[in-house]
Amino acid sequence: METRITKLLGTRYPIIQGGMQWVGRAELASAVSNAGGLGILTALTQPTPADLAREIERCRTMTDKPFGVNLTILPSINPPPYEQYLDTIIDSGVRILETAGANPRDFVDKVKAAGIIVIHKCVAVRHALSAERHGVDAVSIDGFECAGHPGEDDIPGLVLIPAAARALKIPIVASGGFGDGRGMAAALALGAEGINMGTRFCATQEAPIHDKIKQALVAATERDTRLIFRPFRNTARILGNAVAREVNEIEARPGATFEDIHHLVAGQRGKKALETGDVDDGLVWAGQIVGLIDDIPSVRELIDRIVKECRGRLAAATAMAG
Amino acid sequence: METRITKLLGTRYPIIQGGMQWVGRAELASAVSNAGGLGILTALTQPTPADLAREIERCRTMTDKPFGVNLTILPSINPPPYEQYLDTIIDSGVRILETAGANPRDFVDKVKAAGIIVIHKCVAVRHALSAERHGVDAVSIDGFECAGHPGEDDIPGLVLIPAAARALKIPIVASGGFGDGRGMAAALALGAEGINMGTRFCATQEAPIHDKIKQALVAATERDTRLIFRPFRNTARILGNAVAREVNEIEARPGATFEDIHHLVAGQRGKKALETGDVDDGLVWAGQIVGLIDDIPSVRELIDRIVKECRGRLAAATAMAG
Repeated sequence: METRITKLLGTRYPIIQGGMQWVGRAELASAVSNAGGLGILTALTQPTPADLAREIERCRTMTDKPFGVNLTILPSINPPPYEQYLDTIIDSGVRILETAGANPRDFVDKVKAAGIIVIHKCVAVRHALSAERHGVDAVSIDGFECAGHPGEDDIPGLVLIPAAARALKIPIVASGGFGDGRGMAAALALGAEGINMGTRFCATQEAPIHDKIKQALVAATERDTRLIFRPFRNTARILGNAVAREVNEIEARPGATFEDIHHLVAGQRGKKALETGDVDDGLVWAGQIVGLIDDIPSVRELIDRIVKECRGRLAAATAMAG
Repeated sequence: METRITKLLGTRYPIIQGGMQWVGRAELASAVSNAGGLGILTALTQPTPADLAREIERCRTMTDKPFGVNLTILPSINPPPYEQYLDTIIDSGVRILETAGANPRDFVDKVKAAGIIVIHKCVAVRHALSAERHGVDAVSIDGFECAGHPGEDDIPGLVLIPAAARALKIPIVASGGFGDGRGMAAALALGAEGINMGTRFCATQEAPIHDKIKQALVAATERDTRLIFRPFRNTARILGNAVAREVNEIEARPGATFEDIHHLVAGQRGKKALETGDVDDGLVWAGQIVGLIDDIPSVRELIDRIVKECRGRLAAATAMAG
């Protein structure tokens, strides 16, 4: 396949593995890159910048294809040492950085000066335009369907992707709600030049999470995710498990504050379930695409299937359109 | 174009004008049918079944192409005479019926016995499967993006359309969030065999609504719709005008009931703004596709443009997919 995204990244397919906390480790990232996509290590999955440097080295021993690192910058009372993580990424010689959260204006010049390609992930056309103005190379535009933080506008990809494609000059990657060849074909038709998949890659053999969580993703339907943190304007989509239901119940009480749910979501509650395999043991990030996940293939099987189905669906649609 | 939907309906293109209260009159329906799509008269826009019979006759004088009638059956304290409207549709010789709201099981046998094609519009895969079991010919599957009632599951088309396409044997029409050729190409790629457009057809020269409302649709962005009635599990998406804001404010009060907002939404508040042209004068139904509406073309210009853009986008996507 050839789009501005494959040319920018040097990959065979315009398929990017989304940066996922606790999941974006060398096992998964290298598998995606080896299969022709772009694997992504998540910087903050590593407890220190030195650990990130070692993880990048480890990934290099597992693939000779391009891979990237995600750095998600969120407001925090006790922030991680973002600047040190960024310096580590630059010093490691990684060529592709995925950013998310904060406006990239504060660090894009430094990263670009190091010759690094920057893909900024955002959830609104106005944020994508701002990132373009500040010099990023591409944006991932994340729709309402996505796992994690969809923002507060609730615009799904069917509208958000063409809106972004019309407004931007740089190439866009469609994110949120993608996991099969039908979706990839739709993304290309809507004006994106690649897709980003997170939840779908969690349900692969190589994803470094407990098998019972993968099975929970297979079992879930498209109705089995929930939005939490909406009252605090920090909305996140997660699998609708016991924790999600409890958080939603507390949020529904008049006057509920973030402090009221803090004990349910603080610390590494997102890590715990992935490790123990008990789906009710913490926050399990999942997008609505869970409804279309039916198996746990290898990453290579998955990517090959998506590419084949994408081409097949475009051929079928073209035949219908005459 | 040729899909199971064009073959079922006898239209040139698989483009259906959504049944819209106060908008689905002969002027718009005939224009859509004359341009190669399927125009739809909305039964309950007519005050009596006799008026509907006259409107059907009037539409026949304006087009010799197929058109349909929408009958939306909703729970109501003082329901309109649904059975009489249905008998009028059957007696009028109309060949295509779009149903929405209630499960079609109660009337589908009678309608099918009269040789009428039935398209049932619904918002969930389980409802679509039920409609298929009861013998409808096709379903319109309406995603979270749509104007009017998206249901309470909040599943956008990117996930809902392939989920429905995988589950159903009968053809599906993609509805909600469609208004251009990019979207049509995506719908066909996702597994639909046609698209349904409501909001986009409101912003055409032939739509029988005030020009200032059409201009308001052009001015609106994808962020300018609001959901109302969510606390009452009867969610509806409308343009974010003064009425919508007031309804949302009242709904946010603890213990708010439908009685508290009844004065803002009762009677023909949906009709008033369309007639006066004051966008704040009532409920104005609009889907998120408003963000991609930039002009007020004739229906024929719009359909021709969509068909051309759909084919162009599929060719571009096919070139990228290699």
